[in-house]
Amino acid sequence: MNACTYSDKEVNIIANRKEVAKLAGVSEATVSRVFNNSGPLREETKRKVLQAAKELNYHPNAIAQSFARGKSNNIGVIVPYLPKVNLMSTYYFSELLNGIGTKLGEFGYGLLLLFQQANEPKDYVKLFLSQRVDGCIILGSKNIPGEVAALENLHQLNLPYCLVNQSFSGYSFHSIDADHINGSFQAVSSLLNKGHKQIIFLNGPMEYSNSVERLKGYEKAITKAGIPLNEKLLFQGNYSRKSGFQAAIHIGPLLENCQAIFTANDRMAIGLMQGLSSLGYLAGDDYSLIGYDDSDLSTMTSPPLSTVNVPLFEMGQLAAEKVLQLASTDDKTEIHECLPVSLIERASSLNKIKRFKV
Amino acid sequence: MNACTYSDKEVNIIANRKEVAKLAGVSEATVSRVFNNSGPLREETKRKVLQAAKELNYHPNAIAQSFARGKSNNIGVIVPYLPKVNLMSTYYFSELLNGIGTKLGEFGYGLLLLFQQANEPKDYVKLFLSQRVDGCIILGSKNIPGEVAALENLHQLNLPYCLVNQSFSGYSFHSIDADHINGSFQAVSSLLNKGHKQIIFLNGPMEYSNSVERLKGYEKAITKAGIPLNEKLLFQGNYSRKSGFQAAIHIGPLLENCQAIFTANDRMAIGLMQGLSSLGYLAGDDYSLIGYDDSDLSTMTSPPLSTVNVPLFEMGQLAAEKVLQLASTDDKTEIHECLPVSLIERASSLNKIKRFKV
Repeated sequence: MNACTYSDKEVNIIANRKEVAKLAGVSEATVSRVFNNSGPLREETKRKVLQAAKELNYHPNAIAQSFARGKSNNIGVIVPYLPKVNLMSTYYFSELLNGIGTKLGEFGYGLLLLFQQANEPKDYVKLFLSQRVDGCIILGSKNIPGEVAALENLHQLNLPYCLVNQSFSGYSFHSIDADHINGSFQAVSSLLNKGHKQIIFLNGPMEYSNSVERLKGYEKAITKAGIPLNEKLLFQGNYSRKSGFQAAIHIGPLLENCQAIFTANDRMAIGLMQGLSSLGYLAGDDYSLIGYDDSDLSTMTSPPLSTVNVPLFEMGQLAAEKVLQLASTDDKTEIHECLPVSLIERASSLNKIKRFKV
Repeated sequence: MNACTYSDKEVNIIANRKEVAKLAGVSEATVSRVFNNSGPLREETKRKVLQAAKELNYHPNAIAQSFARGKSNNIGVIVPYLPKVNLMSTYYFSELLNGIGTKLGEFGYGLLLLFQQANEPKDYVKLFLSQRVDGCIILGSKNIPGEVAALENLHQLNLPYCLVNQSFSGYSFHSIDADHINGSFQAVSSLLNKGHKQIIFLNGPMEYSNSVERLKGYEKAITKAGIPLNEKLLFQGNYSRKSGFQAAIHIGPLLENCQAIFTANDRMAIGLMQGLSSLGYLAGDDYSLIGYDDSDLSTMTSPPLSTVNVPLFEMGQLAAEKVLQLASTDDKTEIHECLPVSLIERASSLNKIKRFKV
């Protein structure tokens, strides 16, 4: 970069509305109207102003614009605070953020990332009162009293928000979800179709609607196969790899009679796979295993992990689109979208039925 | 939530500066001065105003404040656009974002996430002109002409910014980096100390300073051991798992004479491990393997992957702290911090030297 280019830039920095108005041959008020998209304007006038702004490298002051319109042009994305990446996998989080960011970018909106501390009182309304965001997208919310009250407040005040991958039974909060009942049904049915008569299920905590839905799908599949629910086959972790690893000590002894396991996410599946491996049981060989999420991890294990693909990127895009829609119109139609998921079979669930180590 | 609580909230929404002033027994101008932290104020006055604001659940309008001070109270974080999570791992990205977000939160700043399209012309100055951010943190920047020019521009204009995990030789851009020369040196030295005489090295693209530094560390270690550089042992991937997998076809035949491999990140190590496994070579058994990053993936492979820990969370925190410092003072001292890294040995690099498959 030479000195000349640098001084060009310096000139551009001080280009202001007055200069744009002069070059376009219009008033300063007209320049403002073009950039605020307010009032009737002739196409020709608009073209001239935008051309002049481009030539002068003029960027209207976003804060001044925001102030005039009472808008921040940012959408808040609320994520649980992840100190050392535990419960919510980084894959899950990145895919959703990418989807949201892509869609917001298309509409010229910024993505304001808001980390929610676990022990912080939830007050989403406060966020809107501060006017730092025009809408918000909430990731990883839990069905616990404080959370539900905060969401009810948000909903009753008609503020533009959307939940992603979480629904609350008995409430009609705006949400973009995926069909986890069906995902779980597909996974369990595929194990049953291989001849397994008993399916071990390692689920996540029941305060996540995802976990409740996965249990429903599990029950639906075994009921359809005419198998009664055996509570001794149901386990609960916390969606972390560690909790999967720890479950191995309880699940290992059951493998003698039952060689099929479904887990509510890939991280627990991988932890369980490692724990069972240390007990001498190999996935895809000694037992069949299906995870959930189709995370990048699932292709990196040995054997590769069967799993359920969730369209996280698309869910993020759709949530952003819906929140922008709520923020820009008076139409407050409730949003309830549920995207399809699909089973992906890999080597971890291809074992033959057998009796072993007896 | 009952109707009474709801109508309380409704009242709070319209609480304004006038009411706060009245309750505190001060003028509206004094309320503004408290919230803008401007002018001399008695502690007692400040306390009364804050108490009244708290009682009335009054939140000063962030946009109006921003406008008055010409500040957005947001720091932009520029990340490469990751459509399906390829080059930059989600772990890397999440840890840095968490570190940045935590520190910004402490200071009451927002994190505005800005996705940079690969083919977009870089113009960081434009971002500042729009006044959407008070400073910016740039992740994953590459040493290519357009990027360097954009950074030079930013630097010469004294705008508050900081690079993370990237340095540019010949330029003194503000940056928070880690000691990758030493990290690479430690990894390669540990393989040499196990008796390996030749070390295969799968590096990333040379437009990332990280890759250049890892090569320097590799050379330093073999030079110290009195071993000449053998270019036939040097390979280049693009930091993706796939590129590691593809390298296996070239690296496999070399394992007859050389059973030690160092890769520039964990994802390539895992891809390579999978590729070599399909050729019949098992990590930790037939050859030693060390990755880099200490990502969550490294504990999920079988065998667990030896790697180099990089303090990404701390680097993010430090970058945020430094940018806030640059944004709030006139002190433009250049920032060049380089955090230490450490080798973590796991089962993948514990094989004994042997000649096999001859």
